[in-house]
Amino acid sequence: MSIDDLTKSTGEWLRGDGPMSDVVVSSRIRLARNLAEHPFLSTADAGQRTEIYRCLSHAITSTSAGADDILVDLETADAIDRNLLVERHLISRQHAAGEGSRGVTISQSETRAVMINEEDHLRLQGLRSGLQLEVLWTEINEFDDALSKSLPFAFDRQLGYLTACPTNVGTGIRVSVMLHLPALRLTKEIERVARAAKDLHLAVRGTYGEGTEAVGDLYQVSNQTTLGKSEDAIINTFSETIIPNIVGYERTARETLAKHHESQLDDRIWRAYGVLSNARRISSGETQSLLSPIRMGIQMGRFKQFDLATLHELFLYTQPAHLQKMHGQTLDEEQRAVARADYIRKRLA
Amino acid sequence: MSIDDLTKSTGEWLRGDGPMSDVVVSSRIRLARNLAEHPFLSTADAGQRTEIYRCLSHAITSTSAGADDILVDLETADAIDRNLLVERHLISRQHAAGEGSRGVTISQSETRAVMINEEDHLRLQGLRSGLQLEVLWTEINEFDDALSKSLPFAFDRQLGYLTACPTNVGTGIRVSVMLHLPALRLTKEIERVARAAKDLHLAVRGTYGEGTEAVGDLYQVSNQTTLGKSEDAIINTFSETIIPNIVGYERTARETLAKHHESQLDDRIWRAYGVLSNARRISSGETQSLLSPIRMGIQMGRFKQFDLATLHELFLYTQPAHLQKMHGQTLDEEQRAVARADYIRKRLA
Repeated sequence: MSIDDLTKSTGEWLRGDGPMSDVVVSSRIRLARNLAEHPFLSTADAGQRTEIYRCLSHAITSTSAGADDILVDLETADAIDRNLLVERHLISRQHAAGEGSRGVTISQSETRAVMINEEDHLRLQGLRSGLQLEVLWTEINEFDDALSKSLPFAFDRQLGYLTACPTNVGTGIRVSVMLHLPALRLTKEIERVARAAKDLHLAVRGTYGEGTEAVGDLYQVSNQTTLGKSEDAIINTFSETIIPNIVGYERTARETLAKHHESQLDDRIWRAYGVLSNARRISSGETQSLLSPIRMGIQMGRFKQFDLATLHELFLYTQPAHLQKMHGQTLDEEQRAVARADYIRKRLA
Repeated sequence: MSIDDLTKSTGEWLRGDGPMSDVVVSSRIRLARNLAEHPFLSTADAGQRTEIYRCLSHAITSTSAGADDILVDLETADAIDRNLLVERHLISRQHAAGEGSRGVTISQSETRAVMINEEDHLRLQGLRSGLQLEVLWTEINEFDDALSKSLPFAFDRQLGYLTACPTNVGTGIRVSVMLHLPALRLTKEIERVARAAKDLHLAVRGTYGEGTEAVGDLYQVSNQTTLGKSEDAIINTFSETIIPNIVGYERTARETLAKHHESQLDDRIWRAYGVLSNARRISSGETQSLLSPIRMGIQMGRFKQFDLATLHELFLYTQPAHLQKMHGQTLDEEQRAVARADYIRKRLA
């Protein structure tokens, strides 16, 4: 299996059928690990970096769970492939744009991706559709245990796991949930929710993580504290309190829109469909913005012109790298705008 | 025949098949006349005003050409009917909003409308699709002659026809052509054309005359001088020089768009169609703006989803008074927005 095979489906996290999937697009857990017997990447030279990459990629594919994983050498992969992995949320933008020996292993269903030589030696990531943090935690914990049998991780009895950035020290865990909050944005309550989240020491970020905008009303909510709280406690708070609360606010806002602004709501949904199915050139940003009310319309049972699977295909394949991958060539922005509109029209015809 | 019958068709001027109809929507000639033996309206009392109305409406419907005309008493007509006549360009906004004894006679095909007691005692108007000024002039001149046999018009050997406003004195003629200039607006050349027109002592106005905006890229070009030039000379300059020149500029601009900005052009046309055929609420202004690129698309042979007749129906029947007339009741702005979108979707389904 290769990257080309990956693009034949949208991956498990875009199946859209997990718990609370009307609002929760996907859940993610990420662990940061470093090898005890190798220098941190900030001080490693090229040779040491290559050795870390070799050692870790071998260890991962040697586990029983990781035996069928795809290994992508990002140092030799071309830009389209690297950006395609970003668009699928399998690697970070930093990892795609980085330099030197580095890579990622990806499980067949894309529910697990392990970045090698990103900021830390290892970044283990579990990714699933809907709110599935417990399942993810079990899976990633088992994978972490399997790896730790052959790899001695940098660990301090008092501090816990040692990481390149002090904000990750301790459990090294980052729990992050991608939420679709169009109604909270329309009713302008999103700012209030973001402030409340901040008071709980949570980060509310855009679609592609830190420093990115919320394209298509997609927000990532994640923990900022990794020290002094157990993994179970962090996950439990997310699953039982934080996320259900925000989901409740969004659902209430949707009900309010449906009750008091029905024609405005439907107008927004159908205009988006009208533009998407007729445009002759369209940017990636506008596409994502227009897919947002349609996703809400599908989830609310107000829009039946196409289903969630089609929406997620459009969501993924209209992004620049996916679009170029489908065309098998590099396209400039102008060419992409036309190719994107063509693809959408054909898909919706 | 009544106003209700009128609304069953769009009228001759929206047939869209006259000469140069790719750019020229309609041509209009208007004559201003006043009765010699009655005071001008600025000084007439209510009784005199009523007497003028009675005398003129009788005279018009007594001519052989006007025998089948509809006479609408605007003093007793309701607001929807009065505004409907404005939307069909059969009376002015001032006439609809005026007070006292006043009315209009309208020929079956709507190619002739005579306003009684607007600014002058009589405003004879001929209206036809495309560039048909010579035909209009022959028709309106004959009608003027027929009327003048029974009605002594206020006329001065030196000044010509006397009118309420000095800008109309002389021939009392106003020649006005409604042009659809979307490409000149898109290429931003419209300002240059407007300045050139002004240098030729022409007025360039919005869709509904003086002080109105150019909704849907529709501009009215008309003469400002009525004194010192014969009717034939004025009409000849319009038909042979002024209008063909502007039409030429617009056609060139359309060719430029098609040649150098093909996908932008088609994108504009198809997005407009996408929104119109999917919106759940839409204003009259937005509707007219969206119909503009579609009209251009139809005329350029780039858009075949529906024809010009359908476009003109949408153009006319989505306006507030027509919409309310169809619904048989008064609708507020909010209700109209929804009713308009419903009508458009059904018409395009």
